[in-house]
Amino acid sequence: MDLIVQKYGGTSVGNPDRIKNVAERIIKEHKKGSQIVVTVSAMGDTTDQLIKLMKEITHKPDPREIDMLLTTGEQISIALLCMAIQSEGFPAISLTGSQVGIKTNNRHNHAVITGINNDRIISELNHSKIVVVAGFQGVNSNDDFTTLGRGGSDTTAVALAISLGAKRCEIYSDVDGIYTADPRIVHEAKKLDCISCDEMLELANLGAKVLHPRSVELAKIYGLELYAASSFNHNTGTIVKEVRQMEKRRSVTGVTSDRREVKVAIKGIADRPGMAAELFSKLAKDEINVDMIIQNLAYGNLNDITFTINEEQLVQGRQTIYRVAEELGAKDVEIDSTVAKVSIVGAGMITTSGVAAKMFEALGNENINIQQITTSDIKVSCLIAEAEAENAVRAIHKIFNLA
Amino acid sequence: MDLIVQKYGGTSVGNPDRIKNVAERIIKEHKKGSQIVVTVSAMGDTTDQLIKLMKEITHKPDPREIDMLLTTGEQISIALLCMAIQSEGFPAISLTGSQVGIKTNNRHNHAVITGINNDRIISELNHSKIVVVAGFQGVNSNDDFTTLGRGGSDTTAVALAISLGAKRCEIYSDVDGIYTADPRIVHEAKKLDCISCDEMLELANLGAKVLHPRSVELAKIYGLELYAASSFNHNTGTIVKEVRQMEKRRSVTGVTSDRREVKVAIKGIADRPGMAAELFSKLAKDEINVDMIIQNLAYGNLNDITFTINEEQLVQGRQTIYRVAEELGAKDVEIDSTVAKVSIVGAGMITTSGVAAKMFEALGNENINIQQITTSDIKVSCLIAEAEAENAVRAIHKIFNLA
Repeated sequence: MDLIVQKYGGTSVGNPDRIKNVAERIIKEHKKGSQIVVTVSAMGDTTDQLIKLMKEITHKPDPREIDMLLTTGEQISIALLCMAIQSEGFPAISLTGSQVGIKTNNRHNHAVITGINNDRIISELNHSKIVVVAGFQGVNSNDDFTTLGRGGSDTTAVALAISLGAKRCEIYSDVDGIYTADPRIVHEAKKLDCISCDEMLELANLGAKVLHPRSVELAKIYGLELYAASSFNHNTGTIVKEVRQMEKRRSVTGVTSDRREVKVAIKGIADRPGMAAELFSKLAKDEINVDMIIQNLAYGNLNDITFTINEEQLVQGRQTIYRVAEELGAKDVEIDSTVAKVSIVGAGMITTSGVAAKMFEALGNENINIQQITTSDIKVSCLIAEAEAENAVRAIHKIFNLA
Repeated sequence: MDLIVQKYGGTSVGNPDRIKNVAERIIKEHKKGSQIVVTVSAMGDTTDQLIKLMKEITHKPDPREIDMLLTTGEQISIALLCMAIQSEGFPAISLTGSQVGIKTNNRHNHAVITGINNDRIISELNHSKIVVVAGFQGVNSNDDFTTLGRGGSDTTAVALAISLGAKRCEIYSDVDGIYTADPRIVHEAKKLDCISCDEMLELANLGAKVLHPRSVELAKIYGLELYAASSFNHNTGTIVKEVRQMEKRRSVTGVTSDRREVKVAIKGIADRPGMAAELFSKLAKDEINVDMIIQNLAYGNLNDITFTINEEQLVQGRQTIYRVAEELGAKDVEIDSTVAKVSIVGAGMITTSGVAAKMFEALGNENINIQQITTSDIKVSCLIAEAEAENAVRAIHKIFNLA
């Protein structure tokens, strides 16, 4: 019998009616004869409400207690979803991360799954039950609850699918699937039927909010097929899997923009070997992930290093950046959040010449200045003024005939 | 080192400010050098909100899933309370019923504690931590979460105190302690410094909402001293313990009224032996707890049986009552909820003659008609018209000079 793992995001279970809708979808799949394991996020704004309560009590909460608090969010949604399935006459059982035995390391708030005990789930499946598992959470070796951080529920779903040897893992959200560009920006954007893991990884990292890169990475490593679709309609979604037909690869699969990019310039530091290594290892130590990097030409014996980070990282990282700049004897720090990164992604790019040039041409035609460029085998990214982001995406989408 | 168990009710932790207040009280006790284990209920209306969500999904929820849902309420309050304690610089750790190992039987929604594993709590106490345990919840042999039903958090506190060999168990609510009567009804009502378990049991059963009878019973069996006080002030509360000085017992300790009483008359059933047994065993089978019973004199070969139940029982029990009446061939069923039960309680009553007569005199003086009477060694209860309840309590309080 086929085993399918489904995941429904917070918007999909945002209120009792939506929970009932999700229950119906699960039952429909169950009736086809598959065994179903479902993982869900916390309802809509539950997590935000809990965080609001927490902030009224303290601004420096203990990470362990944060996890104790936040894990209730998914526990509420698994209970309600089970009730909705049961009220339609189908057997279901809810299990928390700790009850399943989703083992993690001890890093509260961003724990990593180290193993899953399949026993309880398999036993419930063998009793013909639909098994509903709390996403985003696990339990450490001390029997304390942990949460997986960003993309946690997607990761739970993929990890369960791998551990249970599921046929595939379906991730439902409020988005129909993966598009050649954000349909709100590019009206002609086309939904992709299929995309490779590598392309998806680049797209996910670039701000397409459908699948979290962490889960795609895990799926890629274990060769698991993912399917991203909407829980609000029955449109065909997008399959994410390793593509074998090398020669049929599209040169460019999609265009994305990310407005959360922030440009940081560390100005006037000594132009000597090892300076960049020192800067970035100090930042890494404080868990600041740097994205694009440019080292300008030195003038005199001083140098500028410019890099980009995510807006969110800036909240925690601002102090670190200034501290590190001071330690390196920098003359000045400039932080500019009015930038955006536009990118093209395509597994076929590596075998097609002139792809990057064509992208630059599109931007040039629109008089958009390129501040920084990074490339990989399947991606070209340009940092531009934030105000030009949508215009840039439309121009690039058009020049590559993605519609 | 002394070990004290404290319990704070839902009103006491009803919002972030109140949680901070409770944290301060706990810290104050901690500073005196005692080891502290705290158990808390869900915040104010959290449980009601969860039940509201549930009812939007189904009216016949699975008992196991109800427990999965409701146990999140206390999990939220233990996390927030720990954060509040920690933010004042004191070490604390929260534990759910399942993490502690509060073992229960399998009766979801009204489980009974079968044992407590002290290991985790003692280990945390030995690390100088204030241990905050979720009230109302446990875990069954299948690793499923259970709830203890009514009075659950009080019961958790008492069970923990017994299991850990605590010096005493302090139950904090929004009420100052145990009074000779409800101070909202009788302005002269006096707070009692001390009361016996038996008296407290009768008072608790009679609607004084300070301590749940289940927890008092448990404390009585194990000889544990209870202390009931308010978390909103520092007034001295009431100690509940086995009183040894038999001769010093007050004849009447307190007066209570319970407006939730409902009178049910099963009219015109055959006057033959075994009829009452049949009626009440059928009701018991559907878990309807009958309180006062009167069997009227038979007229002809027909008989009336009148009994009282709690308002809440009527919600679930109405159908059962009509069904059983039909099965017994009754002519009619009358349900009257405009009644109230007033009671006097006192361990010295048994050795003081004329106590009941004095109570009836007080009611007679006020022209209050007595519909039904029940008595025990330490209690006399009269069923009267609901509208006369407050008047009756005041008159009885006065005649016994309780002020």
